[in-house]
Amino acid sequence: YSKTEQKLLLGSTYFFPKFIFLWAIMADQAPSVARAAVLKESSSLPEDMPQIKGYDFNQGVDHRALLQSFLTTGFQASSFGQAVQEINKMIEKRLEPVQEEQESCDSHSSASGCTIFLGYTSNLISSGVRESIRYLAQHRMVDVIVTTAGGIEEDFIKCLAPTYLGEFSLKGKELRQQGINRIGNLLVPNDNYCKFEDWLMPILDQMVLEQKTEGTHWTPSKMIHRLGKEINNPDSVYYWAYKNDIPVFSPALTDGSLGDMIYFHSYKNPGLVLDIVEDIRRLNSKAVFAKSTGMIILGGGLVKHHIANANLMRNGADFAVFVNTGQEFDGSDSGARPDEAISWGKIRMDASPVKVYADASIVFPLLVAETFAHNADRLIKEKNSD
Amino acid sequence: YSKTEQKLLLGSTYFFPKFIFLWAIMADQAPSVARAAVLKESSSLPEDMPQIKGYDFNQGVDHRALLQSFLTTGFQASSFGQAVQEINKMIEKRLEPVQEEQESCDSHSSASGCTIFLGYTSNLISSGVRESIRYLAQHRMVDVIVTTAGGIEEDFIKCLAPTYLGEFSLKGKELRQQGINRIGNLLVPNDNYCKFEDWLMPILDQMVLEQKTEGTHWTPSKMIHRLGKEINNPDSVYYWAYKNDIPVFSPALTDGSLGDMIYFHSYKNPGLVLDIVEDIRRLNSKAVFAKSTGMIILGGGLVKHHIANANLMRNGADFAVFVNTGQEFDGSDSGARPDEAISWGKIRMDASPVKVYADASIVFPLLVAETFAHNADRLIKEKNSD
Amino acid sequence: YSKTEQKLLLGSTYFFPKFIFLWAIMADQAPSVARAAVLKESSSLPEDMPQIKGYDFNQGVDHRALLQSFLTTGFQASSFGQAVQEINKMIEKRLEPVQEEQESCDSHSSASGCTIFLGYTSNLISSGVRESIRYLAQHRMVDVIVTTAGGIEEDFIKCLAPTYLGEFSLKGKELRQQGINRIGNLLVPNDNYCKFEDWLMPILDQMVLEQKTEGTHWTPSKMIHRLGKEINNPDSVYYWAYKNDIPVFSPALTDGSLGDMIYFHSYKNPGLVLDIVEDIRRLNSKAVFAKSTGMIILGGGLVKHHIANANLMRNGADFAVFVNTGQEFDGSDSGARPDEAISWGKIRMDASPVKVYADASIVFPLLVAETFAHNADRLIKEKNSD
Amino acid sequence: YSKTEQKLLLGSTYFFPKFIFLWAIMADQAPSVARAAVLKESSSLPEDMPQIKGYDFNQGVDHRALLQSFLTTGFQASSFGQAVQEINKMIEKRLEPVQEEQESCDSHSSASGCTIFLGYTSNLISSGVRESIRYLAQHRMVDVIVTTAGGIEEDFIKCLAPTYLGEFSLKGKELRQQGINRIGNLLVPNDNYCKFEDWLMPILDQMVLEQKTEGTHWTPSKMIHRLGKEINNPDSVYYWAYKNDIPVFSPALTDGSLGDMIYFHSYKNPGLVLDIVEDIRRLNSKAVFAKSTGMIILGGGLVKHHIANANLMRNGADFAVFVNTGQEFDGSDSGARPDEAISWGKIRMDASPVKVYADASIVFPLLVAETFAHNADRLIKEKNSD
Repeated sequence: YSKTEQKLLLGSTYFFPKFIFLWAIMADQAPSVARAAVLKESSSLPEDMPQIKGYDFNQGVDHRALLQSFLTTGFQASSFGQAVQEINKMIEKRLEPVQEEQESCDSHSSASGCTIFLGYTSNLISSGVRESIRYLAQHRMVDVIVTTAGGIEEDFIKCLAPTYLGEFSLKGKELRQQGINRIGNLLVPNDNYCKFEDWLMPILDQMVLEQKTEGTHWTPSKMIHRLGKEINNPDSVYYWAYKNDIPVFSPALTDGSLGDMIYFHSYKNPGLVLDIVEDIRRLNSKAVFAKSTGMIILGGGLVKHHIANANLMRNGADFAVFVNTGQEFDGSDSGARPDEAISWGKIRMDASPVKVYADASIVFPLLVAETFAHNADRLIKEKNSD
Repeated sequence: YSKTEQKLLLGSTYFFPKFIFLWAIMADQAPSVARAAVLKESSSLPEDMPQIKGYDFNQGVDHRALLQSFLTTGFQASSFGQAVQEINKMIEKRLEPVQEEQESCDSHSSASGCTIFLGYTSNLISSGVRESIRYLAQHRMVDVIVTTAGGIEEDFIKCLAPTYLGEFSLKGKELRQQGINRIGNLLVPNDNYCKFEDWLMPILDQMVLEQKTEGTHWTPSKMIHRLGKEINNPDSVYYWAYKNDIPVFSPALTDGSLGDMIYFHSYKNPGLVLDIVEDIRRLNSKAVFAKSTGMIILGGGLVKHHIANANLMRNGADFAVFVNTGQEFDGSDSGARPDEAISWGKIRMDASPVKVYADASIVFPLLVAETFAHNADRLIKEKNSD
Repeated sequence: YSKTEQKLLLGSTYFFPKFIFLWAIMADQAPSVARAAVLKESSSLPEDMPQIKGYDFNQGVDHRALLQSFLTTGFQASSFGQAVQEINKMIEKRLEPVQEEQESCDSHSSASGCTIFLGYTSNLISSGVRESIRYLAQHRMVDVIVTTAGGIEEDFIKCLAPTYLGEFSLKGKELRQQGINRIGNLLVPNDNYCKFEDWLMPILDQMVLEQKTEGTHWTPSKMIHRLGKEINNPDSVYYWAYKNDIPVFSPALTDGSLGDMIYFHSYKNPGLVLDIVEDIRRLNSKAVFAKSTGMIILGGGLVKHHIANANLMRNGADFAVFVNTGQEFDGSDSGARPDEAISWGKIRMDASPVKVYADASIVFPLLVAETFAHNADRLIKEKNSD
Repeated sequence: YSKTEQKLLLGSTYFFPKFIFLWAIMADQAPSVARAAVLKESSSLPEDMPQIKGYDFNQGVDHRALLQSFLTTGFQASSFGQAVQEINKMIEKRLEPVQEEQESCDSHSSASGCTIFLGYTSNLISSGVRESIRYLAQHRMVDVIVTTAGGIEEDFIKCLAPTYLGEFSLKGKELRQQGINRIGNLLVPNDNYCKFEDWLMPILDQMVLEQKTEGTHWTPSKMIHRLGKEINNPDSVYYWAYKNDIPVFSPALTDGSLGDMIYFHSYKNPGLVLDIVEDIRRLNSKAVFAKSTGMIILGGGLVKHHIANANLMRNGADFAVFVNTGQEFDGSDSGARPDEAISWGKIRMDASPVKVYADASIVFPLLVAETFAHNADRLIKEKNSD
C-alpha cells in the first residue's frame, strides 16, 4: 500500500481505532486468506449434466414447450418436470403388452403392467381438481383410489348443488350466521348438505335392509361403490369408479357429512355395520398382486399413509409422485420426503420418486395435461381393447 | 434549492437525464406528497391495549415469568400465551362445581363442566410428546382422545422396544438395507414391529374368538380399550385411557402396523369385523351431551377434522386450541384457521379459539407445563373426589 | 325405539355402562339437537357468484383454456387466475394513451400509464426464471427492477459459465470438497466465480479511476447500469436494463460475490464509494411521479419491502401481485399478506392485490405466458412507437 | 383354508368377482410376501444412541429439566436441544483464556475466543424478542450484529412510543383509515413515525454538517453507532451496541423509515452520502481475524446471507444456529438448510450446525435462557475483567 492508501484505510475507519490496528498489520494477509476460501478451485462436472435454462418467450407462447422447459428451470419447476417423467414411466409400464400365460390366470386388475394408486384429500374434490380426477376415473387411467370421507361426499354433493368461489379472509361468524361453510377460498351453502341428506337417507335404509335380509357385509369401499351407482351422474368421480370397477378406499368414511348422516340415520333405523377389516385386505391385495405399482398422492394425512402402507406389502412402489405443501421438520408423515418412505420399504430402493412442493390445484391439472391426457389416445384404446 | 444544490441534484444523476428533468421541476412537490402518505395521522388506540414487551433477562432466568411474558412478545409467542389462557379456561370450567340435579341424572362423562377432546397425529406418540399425553391420560385430565392408527400402535411398540434419535437427512436406501425406519429425525428398528406382532397376534385370536362366541361387536375404540388393558404398562397412554375409561377413537385403525397385523392375521384366522358406525355414534354423543367442550388438537388430517366434526353436533366447541404447521393457502382442513371451523359451526361463534403455528414437540410440553401440570393439584383432587 | 333396538344400543356399548345410561335417556333428543346444528338453513348466495369448475380434459389438451379454468378451480389456482387478471390490468393501464400536455412536460419514465416495479430474489436469476425476466427487460415491459446482490451477479456469471441441475439432498461436505456450490437443487462450480473475478476486476479499476478523475458519484444502480453495458450479452437481464434505461436497485449490493470482489479489490485499489442515499431518492421518485403503479414481487425479504416502501411514497401501489412461499404467522414482512401492506399505505385501500402462495419457478413463467407474452404485440408496438 | 373360510373370503367380496379369483388362488402366498417386506430384519443400532423420552410431569413442573428433556423429545424439540448445545459451545470457546502473545498484538475484537455474529430480521425488534437482543448487546455477549433497516429504526421508535398487540386478521383498509400499521399481530400507530421524524431530522442535519466540515465518511454502521449514542436510552439495543463498541451492519439502511426520512431530508438539506463499501471491508474483517466464529441467525433474507457470506471469507463459521420458518424447496437462501452453506464454505465442513424450524418469538427467548443467561455470571465477569 502506498502511504496515501494506508492513510485512506486508516482514515476511513477512524471511528474504531482498535479494530484498524489489527487491520493495518494484517492487511496484506487478510484478502489472500479470504480469496483462497472464496475462489477455491472446483472439480469439473460431468459433461451431460443438464444446464439451467428457462423458456424463451421470444419464440412465442408455446405452452407445451414452456412446460417442457420446466425440467431445466430448477427448484419446483424441475420437480414438476421430473413428476411428468415419473408418471409417464407409470403409463409406459401400464401400456406394456401382458404375456398370455399371465392373462389367462390373472384377474383383470393385475393385467395392467402398472397398477396406479391415486390418493387425494377432500379439499381437492371440493375444488376444480375434481374434474381432472373424474377424467382419470372415467377413462380408467388409475386402478385404486384412496381418499377421505369428505373426498367422497363432496363429489356427490356437487352433483346436487354447486360450490362457489369466495375468499380466504371471509369472517367465520358472518358466514355461520348465513349458513355458508368455507373451505379455504371456496364456499358451500348449508342447503347443499340438506339436499345430500334427502338423497342419502333412502339409500341408507336400503343398505340396512340388505344387510339384514341378504347378509351384505358392508365396508367403506362397498358403500362408495353403491353410492357411485346411485348417483348415476357422469360428473361424479365415483359414478365412473363404479362403472369401471375402480375400488375406492376410505377407512374413516364416517369422518364427515356421511358420518353425520349415518349418525342421524342410526337413531331412526339402527344397525348398519361398516367393517374396515375386509377393506384393508382388499387394498393390500391390490398392491401385493400388482406387476408394478405407481403412487400419485395429492396432499397428506391418511391418504398418503394409506397408499404407501399398502405398497409396503409388496416391498415398495416402483414409481411415486407426491404433490403437497407439507414439510418434514415436524416429523409428520404428511410432510415426509419420499426418501423417508424408502426407509420403510414403502417405495423401492432403486426407485426415483418425486415430490412437488406445491398446491395441487395448480400442479395437478398441469401434470394430467402432460401425462394422462397427452397419452389419452393410447390409454383409452388399451382400455377399450381389454 | 440553491444553484449549487440544483447542480448537485442534476449532477448526481447525470446518467438518467430524462428522469432528472421532471425531478428538477417537481422537486419541492415530491416530498410533500410522500410525506403526507408516510406520516398520515393516526387515531389513538384504546388505553388498555397490551404493549409489546419481552422478558428482561436482567431479572435472572425465571422460566415461568419468561413464559408469561410470551403473551406480550408478539407473533407466535403471543399465540402461545393465548393458548395457555384458552386451555386454562377449559380447566376452570372443568373444575366448576356441578349442580346436584345434574349429577343425579347425568352419566359420569358429562359430569365434568368441560369435556376436553385431545387429538394428535401418530408422530407425536413416536416423539417424547407421548409422555405429556400419557400424563394427561393418567390423571384423567382429558375426556376423549382421537388419533390415527400409528398414534395407537407406536405407544404399544414403545412399551416393547425403544425409538431412537437420528437425523432428518439419513439416506432412506441405507436405512432400508439395515431395516431401520425413519420418522423425521427418529429411528425405529424393524425388530420393534416383530415384537409387536408377537404381542398382538394372540390378542387378535382372542378377539376373533370373543366375536364368534360372545357376539362381541368390535369397533376401533373397543379394540384400543382392550389393547390398553392387555399392555398393562404404566408407560402407555392407552393403558391409562383403559384404566380411566377415556374413550379413544381412531376410525382408520387399519391404516398402519395394526392394519398390517390384522391383514396377516386374517389369513390365519379370518373373520374379525371392526365396525366404524358404532364409534361415530359414541364420539358424537360425547360432544352432544357435554356441558361445554374444549378441543386441543396437535397436527392436522383426520384427528383435526374428526374432533371438530363431532363438535359440530353440539353447534360448536366452546374452547379450541390448534397446534400445527399447516397453512390455509392450499384449502386443506389441516391448515385451516379456527375461523374456518366457525363458519361450519364446529366452533361457537362467540369463542376465542387459538392456533399456534409451531411444531408441537416444542410447544405442547410447554403448554402442559403452564396449564394442566400447573393446576395438577386441583385437577387430581377433583378426580379423586369423584 | 323398539325393545330390540334399545337392547341393541345398550348391548353394543356394554363396555361403557355409565355412558350409555345417558344415551338411552336422551336418545331421541340427541340427533335433533345435532341435526339442527348440522343442517342449519343457509341464505342464498348472489346469482353471479362464480361456481367452482375445473378443466375438462375430454375437450383435449388446450393449455390456454386450462390456465383460464384456474380462476374457477379454487385455492391457489384461483389466486393464479386473479394474478393474471391483476397483471393484465397493469398492462391495459400501461397501454392507455397518454395525453399530450402530460407528454410534453413529463419525462419518459412517467409517460407510461402504469409504472411496473418488478422485484425478485437472487435464486430466481440462478434458476431458469431468469429467461422470463430477461424477456421483460428486453422488451421494456417493466420500468423498475429491485433485486438482491446475488440477483445481479448471478446474471453476469451465467454469461460466463453455466449453472447446473442437481438435487436438494446432495451433501454439503462432498460438494465443498469439489468446489461445487449448491443453491437448492442447482449447482454452481466455483470456477464460475473465478471467471467473474477476471471479468469484474478491470471494471472496478475503471470505476475507481472515474470516481477519482471525473468525480463520478457511484451508487448501486449506477454500478449495475455500467455492468450491464460491459457484459454486452443479450442473454443478460442487465444488458437489456442498460439498453432500455430500466433502473435496477440493489441497495445491499455488497452482500454477495460482488461484495467479495469489491472487498478483495479494495486492498489492491482502495477508495471506491457506493452511495445508497442517491438511490433511495431515485427509487422513491419512480413511485412518486408515476401515473399509476403496479408491483410484481417474486419472493420476500429486501426486494418485497423495498418496492412496497417506495410505493408508500405515493400513498400506495394501484396494482400488486406477490408470488412467494412465505407465511404470515412469524410476523415477517416476507410472509405478510398484501392486506398488511394496505395498513401501511403501501397498496391503495381500493386495490385488489393478489398473493400466489407458490414457488415462482412454476408460477412466474406461466404468469408471463398469460400476460406480457400474450400481449407482446401490443406492448412491443407501443414501445417502438415511443 | 377351511371350506367355510374360503366361502367367507369369497362371500365377503362378492362385489368384485374377478379380483377375488386371484385372491383365492394366491391367498397363502400373499401374506408371506407381504410379511417378509413388513418384518424385514433390522441391524442393531449402536448402544449409546439416545432413546426418545419426553418430560415426565409426574416429577412436577421443573422448567429447566423440561427444556433439557427436549433433546430426546424428537423433531424440532431435539433441534432446540441441539441449538442450546451449539450456542453453549460458542460460549465455552469464548470463555477460553487467550494466550499472552495473542493478546499483545491483537485488537480487542479478536481477543475473544469466539466471535459471535447475531443476525435478525426487523420484525423481531418490533416484537418482544427485542428485550432478549438488548440483553445480549448490553452485556457484550455478541460481537457483531447484522439486521435490516427496520431492525434499526424500530428499536429507536420503541424508545419514543410503544408498539401494541393486535391480531393477524385485522383489516388493512380499516387500519389505514385510522393510521395504524400492522406487523403480523402487532400494531404501530403512525404517530410513532412522526415522533421518529422529529428525533431524527436534527441528527441528519448534524451528520451532513460533519460530512461537509470534517470530511466524515458515513457508512450504515457508523450511522447506527451515532444513532445509538443519540438515543441515550438503556432500553435500546443500539444504545448498548454503541456503549460496547459492537458494530452493527445494515447495508440497505435506506430500506425503511430511515430511508423515508433520509429521502425527505435530502430535499431540505441534500448531500448526505452513505457508503456501503467500507462496511463490507469492516464486516468481512470481523470474520477473517476471528479466532473462531459462531453465527446465530433469526429469520432469513439479507441478514442470513450477509453473515454467512462474511464467514465464507474465513473458510466457514465454526458454529452456527439458524432459527427460521423458511423452507428449502423454493431454492431461496432464506430457507436453505445449513448443509447448503457448507457447500459454499460458509460453514466449516466439520461443524455441526443446527437449524430450528420455528418462529423465533417462541424459540429465541428460550434459547437465551438456556445459554447466555444461564452463563451470565461467567460471561459478565469475563467482560468486566477485560
